Amino acid sequence: MKKILIHLESDPKASVFDQIAAYDAGVDQIIPYGGVQPGLELSGLVYGGMFTRGGDELKNTAIFIGGTDFAKAQVLMKKVQKLFFGPVRLSVMLDANGSNTTAAALVHKIVHGRDVKGKKVLVMGGTGPVGIRAAILLAKEGCEVYLSSRERPDEIPAEIWKTVQQICNEIEETYGVKINPAEISNNEDAKRVLAQGMNIVACCGAPGSQILDKEVWMNAPSLEIITDINAVNPLGVEGIKVSDNAKEREGKILYGAIAIGNFKMKIHRAAIQSLFKDNNQILDFDSMYEIAKQMEE
Amino acid sequence: MKKILIHLESDPKASVFDQIAAYDAGVDQIIPYGGVQPGLELSGLVYGGMFTRGGDELKNTAIFIGGTDFAKAQVLMKKVQKLFFGPVRLSVMLDANGSNTTAAALVHKIVHGRDVKGKKVLVMGGTGPVGIRAAILLAKEGCEVYLSSRERPDEIPAEIWKTVQQICNEIEETYGVKINPAEISNNEDAKRVLAQGMNIVACCGAPGSQILDKEVWMNAPSLEIITDINAVNPLGVEGIKVSDNAKEREGKILYGAIAIGNFKMKIHRAAIQSLFKDNNQILDFDSMYEIAKQMEE
Amino acid sequence: MKKILIHLESDPKASVFDQIAAYDAGVDQIIPYGGVQPGLELSGLVYGGMFTRGGDELKNTAIFIGGTDFAKAQVLMKKVQKLFFGPVRLSVMLDANGSNTTAAALVHKIVHGRDVKGKKVLVMGGTGPVGIRAAILLAKEGCEVYLSSRERPDEIPAEIWKTVQQICNEIEETYGVKINPAEISNNEDAKRVLAQGMNIVACCGAPGSQILDKEVWMNAPSLEIITDINAVNPLGVEGIKVSDNAKEREGKILYGAIAIGNFKMKIHRAAIQSLFKDNNQILDFDSMYEIAKQMEE
Repeated sequence: MKKILIHLESDPKASVFDQIAAYDAGVDQIIPYGGVQPGLELSGLVYGGMFTRGGDELKNTAIFIGGTDFAKAQVLMKKVQKLFFGPVRLSVMLDANGSNTTAAALVHKIVHGRDVKGKKVLVMGGTGPVGIRAAILLAKEGCEVYLSSRERPDEIPAEIWKTVQQICNEIEETYGVKINPAEISNNEDAKRVLAQGMNIVACCGAPGSQILDKEVWMNAPSLEIITDINAVNPLGVEGIKVSDNAKEREGKILYGAIAIGNFKMKIHRAAIQSLFKDNNQILDFDSMYEIAKQMEE
Repeated sequence: MKKILIHLESDPKASVFDQIAAYDAGVDQIIPYGGVQPGLELSGLVYGGMFTRGGDELKNTAIFIGGTDFAKAQVLMKKVQKLFFGPVRLSVMLDANGSNTTAAALVHKIVHGRDVKGKKVLVMGGTGPVGIRAAILLAKEGCEVYLSSRERPDEIPAEIWKTVQQICNEIEETYGVKINPAEISNNEDAKRVLAQGMNIVACCGAPGSQILDKEVWMNAPSLEIITDINAVNPLGVEGIKVSDNAKEREGKILYGAIAIGNFKMKIHRAAIQSLFKDNNQILDFDSMYEIAKQMEE
Repeated sequence: MKKILIHLESDPKASVFDQIAAYDAGVDQIIPYGGVQPGLELSGLVYGGMFTRGGDELKNTAIFIGGTDFAKAQVLMKKVQKLFFGPVRLSVMLDANGSNTTAAALVHKIVHGRDVKGKKVLVMGGTGPVGIRAAILLAKEGCEVYLSSRERPDEIPAEIWKTVQQICNEIEETYGVKINPAEISNNEDAKRVLAQGMNIVACCGAPGSQILDKEVWMNAPSLEIITDINAVNPLGVEGIKVSDNAKEREGKILYGAIAIGNFKMKIHRAAIQSLFKDNNQILDFDSMYEIAKQMEE
């Protein structure tokens, strides 16, 4: 019986990336849909997966939810699960924009083989899906986590600061972990926050946007580890290389976007494979991190 | 050479259900299209199937026509066949909304192992694709068939009655079998019609719509068999269970939606398989019923 | 690792023909997209192919660009190649409307086993993608090539003539080969041009449009070879049969649309296969002709 993956996303055209990754993970056939709205049409697609195979065979059909819009993907994720009843359900994986697998990969790079309990971590460019998820995972690992947004010339710093505070509140309400908002809108701010004893900086900014200048990070004595997920020049961290994989530069340990991305890809494939173990898997960022912990990098 | 199924339907997104069913029937690759209109675009898609493989290889390409709109699917079915010429043709299966396979399954449940010649059958909720096809198949099996529409609060009974009469006329014109219109818009009507010696009731109403009250069917002495294809509560027949498979209740034999649906699925797969026997199969409801008769349930 | 073909085209629905041809060439999985525009969306699709597999594995992902609109396909072809950098690239094949493989097939039919250097060739109905590419390939083989457009009742002959001249100029600018414009808008024109010592006529007109009358070609003493790619009646050449494959009629050697089409199909499959040799193949009409030359017909 073929392993079939129903690929759902809100973008008009279903992602090539996620489809190739799924085939490489051993999926026999993807049935891909772009432009998926959370209404009657969605029900039809999901019921089509729930009612075609019975009993133990149901584990051979699973759902992947992707797309570049994380918020829309989360709505689909919720709606899909509401359609299940009793044992008539399918395994589902949510990885819009690769954010969940990326967060799992970068946190594992930081944590693996180290005792990070009590370490101070600053998540820069942290208001996007990857930053938020990385912050939560690091807090759960016992880190004292600070979260800041990158400065954007087209937005008012006061508004950005309000957003950062709000996100930290929402994380505490939803996930029960405390994240500290950090107000950073220039190099002086960054120096001031790093000087509070930050041990780790995780840069989660957008592609092509430098977020941490070399002069800032090389002069922060408490800083031990820096990670960056931006693979497009200029990189998020000045002086890093995308291939840096625990590379020591200026006395700090650096992890660049390709090193993190290669491991992210392995997590992606392993997560897809675990969808087909049974018909009960609900794979969100936390379960993907658990998968990462069981893997060799 | 891969067995390729060209899946065409008028709904915007090609059905997950029909695709999984086809893969489980042994199709190697589906090329699915939603939003198919019966114009130039359709010709291009069908010619693409007719002109890529030659001679005996042509039997490895077939067409499935689905979608929730039966009328539009029938138009596609006709247009597709008009594009064929001489031996340059493809096998085609029409099963919009699963109506043809469902009609075949429920009629086989009624007929199999019984002598139904001369039996009086009332098809309730019978104006949809399943009801019409079930009525025709039962009439061809020698039953005396009556067809009624379910009452709908938002429609005028006189209009519904006109529709029922018109459908019976059209069936006679097209298929040469006589179906008797039955005017039923409440329980008293139903009792009156059942009291005319009905032996079998086939409920073909919409999901979640009760069409036959228990008080009505348990007090009809001539009634022997009841079937229902509605799997969504409230079921079409009060007191039935979806899993009823020749289950005796109150002295009647009952067939519920899951029992019929499981057999429908087997017919669906067998029909898909028979598409690839040669390049001449035109599978409509009557040929699917022939397939059902050759199967073990 | 599965051989994956990313199928891109501007038509709303990705071609059935090209997908079946690719599966028959040994592709394991096509990821098809219709309605592709040359913008951000295209980048996402192509990057999805470039960044999922690494190093030597990259040769297992390739891109096919099709659709009925050759000009739009050429734009996609250029944009796709601009997204590649260094060794991070994918093999690409352009065959919008089958024009490249058809031109390669018909030129090979003419050239194979013959010395065509210095032969005079008239490409009739030559202003479309097939005619232009056939003219270029024949000129590169050393023929003296003339190009004419078919007469169309709804267009002004002077305008058509201007188009023909312009196309010949553009070919010389882009490909460095000289093609001679020929002014033909009726049988008298055709006779006059053929009488200039034409040895070969390649008819590349639209389906269902006769372009060369029998009375004209049978009375042209210098004429040796005639080809026609129009498979829909009336055929492009009066008196030809679609199955003519080096068939002698009235002292001329004829090649009809099916004979050319069957060989075109073999070139199509061989070209798809050669996409997966490495990740560096850029298959346009000239490379497809090279592929044709290495094949047995």
